[in-house]
Amino acid sequence: MMQDRVNYGLIGLGTMGAALALNIAEKGYPIAVFNRTGTVTDEFIASAGDLAPHLTPAHSLQDLVAAITRPRTIILMVPAGPVVDAQIEALAPLLDEGDLIIDAGNANFTDTERRTAGARDAKFDFIGIGVSGGEEGARHGPSIMAGGEPAHWQRVGPMLEAISAKYKGTPCAALMGQGGAGHFVKMVHNGIEYADMQMIAETYALMHDGLGWDAAEVAETFETWNKGTLASYLVEISGKVARAVDPISGGPMLDAILDAAGQKGTGRWTAIEAQQLGVPVPVIEAAVAARNISARVDTRARGAGVFGALPHPLAAGALDREVIEGTLIAGKILCYAQGFEMLAKAAEQFSWSLPMATIARIWREGCIIRSDMLNDMASALEAAPDGNLIFAEPFTGMLRKHEPALRRTVIAATQAGIAVPALSAGLSWFDLMRTPRMPANMIQAQRDFFGAHGFQRLDGRDAPHGPWAHGAQG
Amino acid sequence: MMQDRVNYGLIGLGTMGAALALNIAEKGYPIAVFNRTGTVTDEFIASAGDLAPHLTPAHSLQDLVAAITRPRTIILMVPAGPVVDAQIEALAPLLDEGDLIIDAGNANFTDTERRTAGARDAKFDFIGIGVSGGEEGARHGPSIMAGGEPAHWQRVGPMLEAISAKYKGTPCAALMGQGGAGHFVKMVHNGIEYADMQMIAETYALMHDGLGWDAAEVAETFETWNKGTLASYLVEISGKVARAVDPISGGPMLDAILDAAGQKGTGRWTAIEAQQLGVPVPVIEAAVAARNISARVDTRARGAGVFGALPHPLAAGALDREVIEGTLIAGKILCYAQGFEMLAKAAEQFSWSLPMATIARIWREGCIIRSDMLNDMASALEAAPDGNLIFAEPFTGMLRKHEPALRRTVIAATQAGIAVPALSAGLSWFDLMRTPRMPANMIQAQRDFFGAHGFQRLDGRDAPHGPWAHGAQG
Repeated sequence: MMQDRVNYGLIGLGTMGAALALNIAEKGYPIAVFNRTGTVTDEFIASAGDLAPHLTPAHSLQDLVAAITRPRTIILMVPAGPVVDAQIEALAPLLDEGDLIIDAGNANFTDTERRTAGARDAKFDFIGIGVSGGEEGARHGPSIMAGGEPAHWQRVGPMLEAISAKYKGTPCAALMGQGGAGHFVKMVHNGIEYADMQMIAETYALMHDGLGWDAAEVAETFETWNKGTLASYLVEISGKVARAVDPISGGPMLDAILDAAGQKGTGRWTAIEAQQLGVPVPVIEAAVAARNISARVDTRARGAGVFGALPHPLAAGALDREVIEGTLIAGKILCYAQGFEMLAKAAEQFSWSLPMATIARIWREGCIIRSDMLNDMASALEAAPDGNLIFAEPFTGMLRKHEPALRRTVIAATQAGIAVPALSAGLSWFDLMRTPRMPANMIQAQRDFFGAHGFQRLDGRDAPHGPWAHGAQG
Repeated sequence: MMQDRVNYGLIGLGTMGAALALNIAEKGYPIAVFNRTGTVTDEFIASAGDLAPHLTPAHSLQDLVAAITRPRTIILMVPAGPVVDAQIEALAPLLDEGDLIIDAGNANFTDTERRTAGARDAKFDFIGIGVSGGEEGARHGPSIMAGGEPAHWQRVGPMLEAISAKYKGTPCAALMGQGGAGHFVKMVHNGIEYADMQMIAETYALMHDGLGWDAAEVAETFETWNKGTLASYLVEISGKVARAVDPISGGPMLDAILDAAGQKGTGRWTAIEAQQLGVPVPVIEAAVAARNISARVDTRARGAGVFGALPHPLAAGALDREVIEGTLIAGKILCYAQGFEMLAKAAEQFSWSLPMATIARIWREGCIIRSDMLNDMASALEAAPDGNLIFAEPFTGMLRKHEPALRRTVIAATQAGIAVPALSAGLSWFDLMRTPRMPANMIQAQRDFFGAHGFQRLDGRDAPHGPWAHGAQG
């Protein structure tokens, strides 16, 4: 596999960068590597084993650039934000015409847009790619959402496909569109990931708090679900996590873990960009909010003291495993419908030709939200490029089938005070999507009353104000 | 009232600007006015009646500046965005040391922060103030949320108090803090306004669609509520709007209005800034989403065709007027609790000394969300400066009393498919606030499993990873 020429370089040998460099070298692409702290580079090479011959250590940016044959491709795997800009600035004077910088970190897509525009005046090229799958994915096959021009993809696509995850042999890597498109799609992936995890956590609360199931029953439920429609990495690891025993207490691992969820901000980014685009993603918003509230441990304890602690057990017979499974199926479809709608709107807004079905396909393996259902979503999105999965089979039929379960769960949970904000927001969204007459006429009337904003009439006649004094003044 | 000196100028004689100029002149502050289109200025003066002697028309910026005695105070009432920047740029060379520009439009607070910083290097000063109350408020007394330094307030505070609304004699105008603080508070006001309107619309749906009440019964309900705890401008005009007869059809006005709500984007700004701050405001998010979905008339019709139209009538006896009133009271408290928490967090984040109780006080009159309940909120916020109204009386007691009504309504509405996304999001938030043990331990376990993110233990011991292979790798 050894090659004579080194065409690739990588900067940043943290967990993700080191894993990616090994993956690249292993797939037949010798690569030069550099880390700000030189000892990290040396240790990385020393521990690379059989792959060491394909890895060229560099101890300065100059060394790195000198070690790579033109046209160079240099991958940045450094912390998102100002560090990326500093790195580009430091590299710029060392690069030649036709060299390419790839930001493979977790950049905000607006930064990638800006950096792409900035590179237009430079002699080198710049693209941003979203890489999903954590350390494990980076090492053995991530899902890769690339930004850039078709010419960039022609150049680095074969390498990215080679290092990517494979779903039944098909690489989980593709070109999303120009500029920030790759990082945008990665961001929405992460938003969906937040929502997926939150809905699973809500079903866990229903089982653990609502039905009083022990860890084994919970684990067995996730294991069963993982053999059916819900088969997915997140459901699989939920089973493993529920099954795990705490080495310290000897009890269930989950019982020992503080209920304060961390976040790195990409779910928040998704919620913000959805607002900017005017596309509601309430399930994702609910998931971000739930993580925030979970971190407020003291406030929740105070609230329990003042108002009485929740939740209560579910009423006898209110829910069972099958109903909760149907609930999660429905919730998952609704969440993805919102996510894909957001992608469709972004494509329109930013003039990207986002390949909707391909996005579902490259999420089938390598990334955290990988699941069998994404295979059907890919087919469905061929038929529904507007992204609204609720109107595409098999999901229309699945929603018809499982909507009663979702409704029953939201009602039972609300009764017991088991907060299911994401499932509940999903159902509200779905209900609105089939409400031909919303009470927004009241809002329009109010707006016209106090602000003379005007309204449209159902009969199409042109009389945009109501018979009230204030509106008439405007 | 006539004065010799003209210290004030105003640019932009649209609906709001014209009303504000008349208000200022009427309160004893002669003012020079300018509009880009000169005929608008002339028509404004011609229709100003008794106030015309206190208004000085100007037909160029030079004329305007020349008409004002130093130190000048010039109010901009032009469309938010680039127009404001262009106007400042055009004015700058004409101004002298000590002159002050006031942006009284609906600026995004980040723009106000930027403009304030920009003015630091200029010889003139700049502040941004939020003005609420629509045309009627601008003309006869708005609620005014001023940004700026104490010295600015000393200078223009008396004028702003004079033109502001009065609550039992107390001016509804105050200094919020430096830079963008005024526009930030105005933004949150608008977010709350969105939520308040949405929750009223949801109760309207419960009455109209769920209980089948006619317009007179709905109107009478709002009129009754307006005499009790819910007494407020928005409930008052909801009654008037429900009572109004369509001059064209002769039927209820509401029945003729298309259910597609417009928005100018300030609700969206609130949702975005709340995300930036990490403060959940799910009721406001739900309100923004509902407006977005309402505009998708065709999609909703399609959904009704595919899945069956919603809503259905409420089950017999499920809800009555008193339960719905309690629901709206609880929802309103929860929404304001979220809004004030957001203000408290912003104060911390931006180092503003936001006067929490004063904010509630200046919202008691002049603005769209004015209500009697804000009087109690002002007192409560004296005791709870962290902004969380759920822990301050009388709201703790009110929530204890009305929470069952809110829960009963969400359950009944969910059963009937009457989407109540804002009320439902409010209840979920409240339930989480009293849940000492959330299922976020599952999320933390998942994050550690796939990303080695680590977790805290309930027993405080330092063992941040679970006994699973992937986490152990990280």
